[in-house]
Amino acid sequence: MAPGAKKGILERLDAGEIVVGDGGFVFALEKRGYVKAGPWTPEAAAENPDAVRQLHREFLRAGSNVMQTFTFYASDDKLDNRGNIQRFTGQQINEAACDLAREVANEGDALVAGGVCQTPSYLSCKSETEVKAIFKKQLDVFVKKDVDFLIAEYFEHVEEAEWAIQVLKTTGKPVAATMCIGPEGDLNGVSPGDCAVRLVKAGAQIVGINCHFDPETCVKTVKMMKEGVKKAGLKAHYMIQPLAYHTPDCNHQGFIDLPEFPFSLEPRILTRWDMQKYAREAYNAGIRYIGGCCGFEPYHIRALAEELAPERGFLPLGSDKHGNWGSGLEMHTKPWVRARARRDYWENLKPASGRPFCPSMASPDGWGVTKGHADLMQQKEATSKEQLKALFDKANKTH
Amino acid sequence: MAPGAKKGILERLDAGEIVVGDGGFVFALEKRGYVKAGPWTPEAAAENPDAVRQLHREFLRAGSNVMQTFTFYASDDKLDNRGNIQRFTGQQINEAACDLAREVANEGDALVAGGVCQTPSYLSCKSETEVKAIFKKQLDVFVKKDVDFLIAEYFEHVEEAEWAIQVLKTTGKPVAATMCIGPEGDLNGVSPGDCAVRLVKAGAQIVGINCHFDPETCVKTVKMMKEGVKKAGLKAHYMIQPLAYHTPDCNHQGFIDLPEFPFSLEPRILTRWDMQKYAREAYNAGIRYIGGCCGFEPYHIRALAEELAPERGFLPLGSDKHGNWGSGLEMHTKPWVRARARRDYWENLKPASGRPFCPSMASPDGWGVTKGHADLMQQKEATSKEQLKALFDKANKTH
Amino acid sequence: MAPGAKKGILERLDAGEIVVGDGGFVFALEKRGYVKAGPWTPEAAAENPDAVRQLHREFLRAGSNVMQTFTFYASDDKLDNRGNIQRFTGQQINEAACDLAREVANEGDALVAGGVCQTPSYLSCKSETEVKAIFKKQLDVFVKKDVDFLIAEYFEHVEEAEWAIQVLKTTGKPVAATMCIGPEGDLNGVSPGDCAVRLVKAGAQIVGINCHFDPETCVKTVKMMKEGVKKAGLKAHYMIQPLAYHTPDCNHQGFIDLPEFPFSLEPRILTRWDMQKYAREAYNAGIRYIGGCCGFEPYHIRALAEELAPERGFLPLGSDKHGNWGSGLEMHTKPWVRARARRDYWENLKPASGRPFCPSMASPDGWGVTKGHADLMQQKEATSKEQLKALFDKANKTH
Amino acid sequence: MAPGAKKGILERLDAGEIVVGDGGFVFALEKRGYVKAGPWTPEAAAENPDAVRQLHREFLRAGSNVMQTFTFYASDDKLDNRGNIQRFTGQQINEAACDLAREVANEGDALVAGGVCQTPSYLSCKSETEVKAIFKKQLDVFVKKDVDFLIAEYFEHVEEAEWAIQVLKTTGKPVAATMCIGPEGDLNGVSPGDCAVRLVKAGAQIVGINCHFDPETCVKTVKMMKEGVKKAGLKAHYMIQPLAYHTPDCNHQGFIDLPEFPFSLEPRILTRWDMQKYAREAYNAGIRYIGGCCGFEPYHIRALAEELAPERGFLPLGSDKHGNWGSGLEMHTKPWVRARARRDYWENLKPASGRPFCPSMASPDGWGVTKGHADLMQQKEATSKEQLKALFDKANKTH
Repeated sequence: MAPGAKKGILERLDAGEIVVGDGGFVFALEKRGYVKAGPWTPEAAAENPDAVRQLHREFLRAGSNVMQTFTFYASDDKLDNRGNIQRFTGQQINEAACDLAREVANEGDALVAGGVCQTPSYLSCKSETEVKAIFKKQLDVFVKKDVDFLIAEYFEHVEEAEWAIQVLKTTGKPVAATMCIGPEGDLNGVSPGDCAVRLVKAGAQIVGINCHFDPETCVKTVKMMKEGVKKAGLKAHYMIQPLAYHTPDCNHQGFIDLPEFPFSLEPRILTRWDMQKYAREAYNAGIRYIGGCCGFEPYHIRALAEELAPERGFLPLGSDKHGNWGSGLEMHTKPWVRARARRDYWENLKPASGRPFCPSMASPDGWGVTKGHADLMQQKEATSKEQLKALFDKANKTH
Repeated sequence: MAPGAKKGILERLDAGEIVVGDGGFVFALEKRGYVKAGPWTPEAAAENPDAVRQLHREFLRAGSNVMQTFTFYASDDKLDNRGNIQRFTGQQINEAACDLAREVANEGDALVAGGVCQTPSYLSCKSETEVKAIFKKQLDVFVKKDVDFLIAEYFEHVEEAEWAIQVLKTTGKPVAATMCIGPEGDLNGVSPGDCAVRLVKAGAQIVGINCHFDPETCVKTVKMMKEGVKKAGLKAHYMIQPLAYHTPDCNHQGFIDLPEFPFSLEPRILTRWDMQKYAREAYNAGIRYIGGCCGFEPYHIRALAEELAPERGFLPLGSDKHGNWGSGLEMHTKPWVRARARRDYWENLKPASGRPFCPSMASPDGWGVTKGHADLMQQKEATSKEQLKALFDKANKTH
Repeated sequence: MAPGAKKGILERLDAGEIVVGDGGFVFALEKRGYVKAGPWTPEAAAENPDAVRQLHREFLRAGSNVMQTFTFYASDDKLDNRGNIQRFTGQQINEAACDLAREVANEGDALVAGGVCQTPSYLSCKSETEVKAIFKKQLDVFVKKDVDFLIAEYFEHVEEAEWAIQVLKTTGKPVAATMCIGPEGDLNGVSPGDCAVRLVKAGAQIVGINCHFDPETCVKTVKMMKEGVKKAGLKAHYMIQPLAYHTPDCNHQGFIDLPEFPFSLEPRILTRWDMQKYAREAYNAGIRYIGGCCGFEPYHIRALAEELAPERGFLPLGSDKHGNWGSGLEMHTKPWVRARARRDYWENLKPASGRPFCPSMASPDGWGVTKGHADLMQQKEATSKEQLKALFDKANKTH
Repeated sequence: MAPGAKKGILERLDAGEIVVGDGGFVFALEKRGYVKAGPWTPEAAAENPDAVRQLHREFLRAGSNVMQTFTFYASDDKLDNRGNIQRFTGQQINEAACDLAREVANEGDALVAGGVCQTPSYLSCKSETEVKAIFKKQLDVFVKKDVDFLIAEYFEHVEEAEWAIQVLKTTGKPVAATMCIGPEGDLNGVSPGDCAVRLVKAGAQIVGINCHFDPETCVKTVKMMKEGVKKAGLKAHYMIQPLAYHTPDCNHQGFIDLPEFPFSLEPRILTRWDMQKYAREAYNAGIRYIGGCCGFEPYHIRALAEELAPERGFLPLGSDKHGNWGSGLEMHTKPWVRARARRDYWENLKPASGRPFCPSMASPDGWGVTKGHADLMQQKEATSKEQLKALFDKANKTH
């Protein structure tokens, strides 16, 4: 399909179409060996382009209409303060990410979205001018590479999100903005409804939630955003990109505070059936840009596309390798597995963990620190042994 | 590295070296959208070579010394009776799989292993001659493509495994043989010790267990094999390729009987720390060929390689994106997450499932049918509606 | 101790003393075989006085300062519509209950409290006059038997509680009033704070919560009551008599809606250590009348008395058979059990259920019916087979 | 019923009748406040006869055909080494216990059984003569009080059980003998089958299992005993008195090793429906003397009697306060609770724990010490502070 032939993001949403998003890249590529947990930076775009391209292709095949540039945490201040020497400049990483997204987007009905996210500079109390300059630098690449639209995502403070939107708006491209907050609002306690109003007033045409909470919580939070926007007499489109992890036990800071983050989240991973339930609930809540974040694998996105196939009118390519509601099991060798080839079986199953020595819920950490706290100030060096020891001691005391 | 420069599989094991295996391809590629659950056939080798090559590369990078050809269920009788038209012949698929494995093996210190597994012909009571002809056809490709050694894997009946070994032995290449059984033995009740003796007598130089059970159960079963071989006055090398799913609740047929198989196994997925524990236990049991099967992702193999780095003397390439025992978290933004950058934290954590409405164990299905039962006879067509209804009714009655 | 020598309930509370309540009789005596689940009526007071006297004695020995007359559901309208012939009149049951409570109260430092609770007449929309006449009939016995104070308890609608208080107040005796509601308020949505204000205005000197929810939820709800009363510029004493069952999964109607009610609640029973935690939290919340309701056994009350022994200045009699924080285990035969004779062991233990096939939380029933609904209208006959079938069908549909 | 009119225990069993046992007294009376956990001695028989008599009556009413004298751990060597001054001699306690059991047995169709159990003398390696003298002293009371039959129960070593039987046999009264072992056999590894053969050869007419494990495990173990006795060409009657706690996670020493023993076992308590299942399985296994041990409350025994009512031909007295399979709920106020008045509801329910932060299984303690180990030697004094500190340190290391 020629790129020029594609409808833009706002055209689609204005027409009431469903836009299926992609999944999160840092977690998926961490499992594949190309992203380091802790820094979470996207140098793989330049370092291992084959791996990144392959993941884009898998999401496209699963039904995604958006190839988001793999530029999460690719701001210069973030790349700098990771304490390890980078082989690539921020610009190189951002450009490589744009090229990969565009290459794969051209292979199907997908748009390219350039993404920025929250910065260590903001948490370290840098000025509005300084923070905006950070965003501007990534944006210059997005403009040069002519992405189709822009996403400001993963903000814990609405103020920083507003600053990001204000910078992105200067390009004239459509702007989507999502925060990684739950029903309790941002880290300063601004409610989801109020956050949404401020994002819309700052210029975002699409607002919503990404990361930090499970689908159930995110749908609930976007609903609160919608109510807020409606009450304020404003209009917007809504998007949602939740975790693929069950997090009923999170507090307001989300899954980062769970003791299992980030290396023991496996028992919380959503099944494809959980995903179909989520897609339906998001759709019923009036959300039309429906995707995923950390934990999403291509089959999770495919589940969204399969659930919404009646509304969209087509199945994703990847469904040639997937029977609807388990129907592929009709060809399994064992007869009792063939007996699972039906919707009511999978919809009603309460999957066991195989972990009888583990609990079903955890008590989140979270030391009540936010923007400006000494513990959050950025430093270029890795945390020192002394600093770590102090942290370990503090952790042992709070458990 | 020039292929000729590499030590063979037996040279390595004879020298007491650890051989890190790869993970299972059908489950990993099902999640990526290239394999259909139910048939579980490997046409992706010919159909989507980029995806298969990428997965090989990820396992190589994670530390694997073996690139197993993606030829599981690629026997003609299996490909034929899947009820869907195949775009590729069995020979094309087997050849493409060999080429991909060789291409990536050449990029590092890995050998190519050609793999065959149990056949529908055996379950349908075909003769020894007919079943052996099936193996021979795949073997012809492996010989033509000159793989480094051969693996007969995933056998539920020791008799069929013996037949496979006898065919593979005709090539003069080293032969490994694994069965997908637990401590209760094969589906005819032949004990693990007796199975192992028969595999060794049939000509296998390496014997062990793959698939169907979790690492703990598989280590236990290989130990029983070892004892059997020792008692019989024989010698062998040992290998193990378990599931990446916790299965304490399995009966003798393994995870296929669990109600969660194959679409709701997520809560059972092992963490990287579970994997390190497994690698250590396998090593302590005297097993030196240590890999994985269904459910393994590249980071799981990397965890094996990291645990065994002291013995092997080096870390895998992929560890440039992984801090040992979570040390990469030293660079995380939140201080309480930095406090998790230590071994004792992850070793002692009992991860929560986030699923308070789900149990921790399940009751397996399994209708007590085995080789020769009408329900197991192969048919080329997909199961008919009437056949399915009978199965659904039977399933509802047994729950 | 001579009855006249005892301080009254208000004297104690005005002096800041802790009053330890007793536990619920219907559940405890159901387990002992003297109360029928379903009707839940207290004919045992007349029918099996030895069993009732023994339970009073056990609570007294455990530290209770109140012997509540076993007159729950002993109103004539309730006794009548149970569909089974009663061998005793309502008056006989109420009188017997008063005599038993007084007999045991005389054996220690306890007061006798006459109790009334919600009536089927109210749920069936009988008039205020009719409902008040019901309360009056029980009250006549309490006056004749000269109980020390009165308790109006177990009300789901604040209006009916007000009516009860108004009747009880005519005696001049101190009146306590508790509702079986949670943080969401009464069945008409009146908040805990507003309920409390109305109870105080109706004349109750002591207000609080009993039954339907676990201690954690009840403490939270009484706190809301306290805030309401304070905001209204009023004053009251506070009491709490929660369940001995963990109910984190309840909705606003409480444990009756849990699928486990009433015959499979065992896995939810609180330990004695859970009870000590509850006693401390209730005390810290400023509650001074601290007891229990359904599920409480004598050792649960003893745990409250032991936790509050520093404040009260003495241990209960029953502690001659209980080592503080497990210290009695110092005399156990097995050394590893002796190693459990310490507070930190029991405080930190997360007890396992031994039920790996069961979940940790349940989804409550509750069909959204309240006062006035046809399904709630009282009828003297047991539910007919046709009525039951309709209910079973309805239940199967909602699950 | 005149005592003389009653059939003896062997007459009943020889006639194929079911004998319903009673439940354990130490745990039930600990919850009521009359027994101290740790020493677990039965001085309450003399100290608080009303409480003991009441519990006997509740078991009788629930359907028990046996009133076992409350003489557990009432041997002089046990009473002496509890480190606290006893107000009663062993003889006084044993006599009081006999009188109470006889008094209540006379009120219904129940026999009196005099019980002895394992002694600290045996664990401390006293001679056969010394240990037998201990048993003889209790036996003298049983003979004087003319109990109907004798039970040697709660033995971890078959040798000591044999000694007990040999002493009891001298009276000519029928002798039952039970051990507190699981499928792995006694603490010296003697198998259940071999233990049973030795008990029968020593003279026991009834053999079986009591305490330490849940019903499922105990039924399994008695089956092993039965097979052993049959293989040896011997004959016996079988009895079973399991825990009322689920213990799937026990090792060979049973529930004492569970971290929850004895003060946090609540989540493991069996429901009445669990009990009905147990009664049926025990009956189907050919066991005819079916009762309970620690954790049993009267309603648990009633559940056994209700399950076996079709075979016995009558319901217990206590069923006048219990509707079969929940049918009493037909009279509940809430319609959705009335919808639970049916067998399939309760049989299929998997009850939730309400404890999402707790696991479902625990890892047992157990330091591998047995008879003769220094840690097990009896001492009259309570464990000293120094001894305790050593134990706490050892415990912390093993966790």
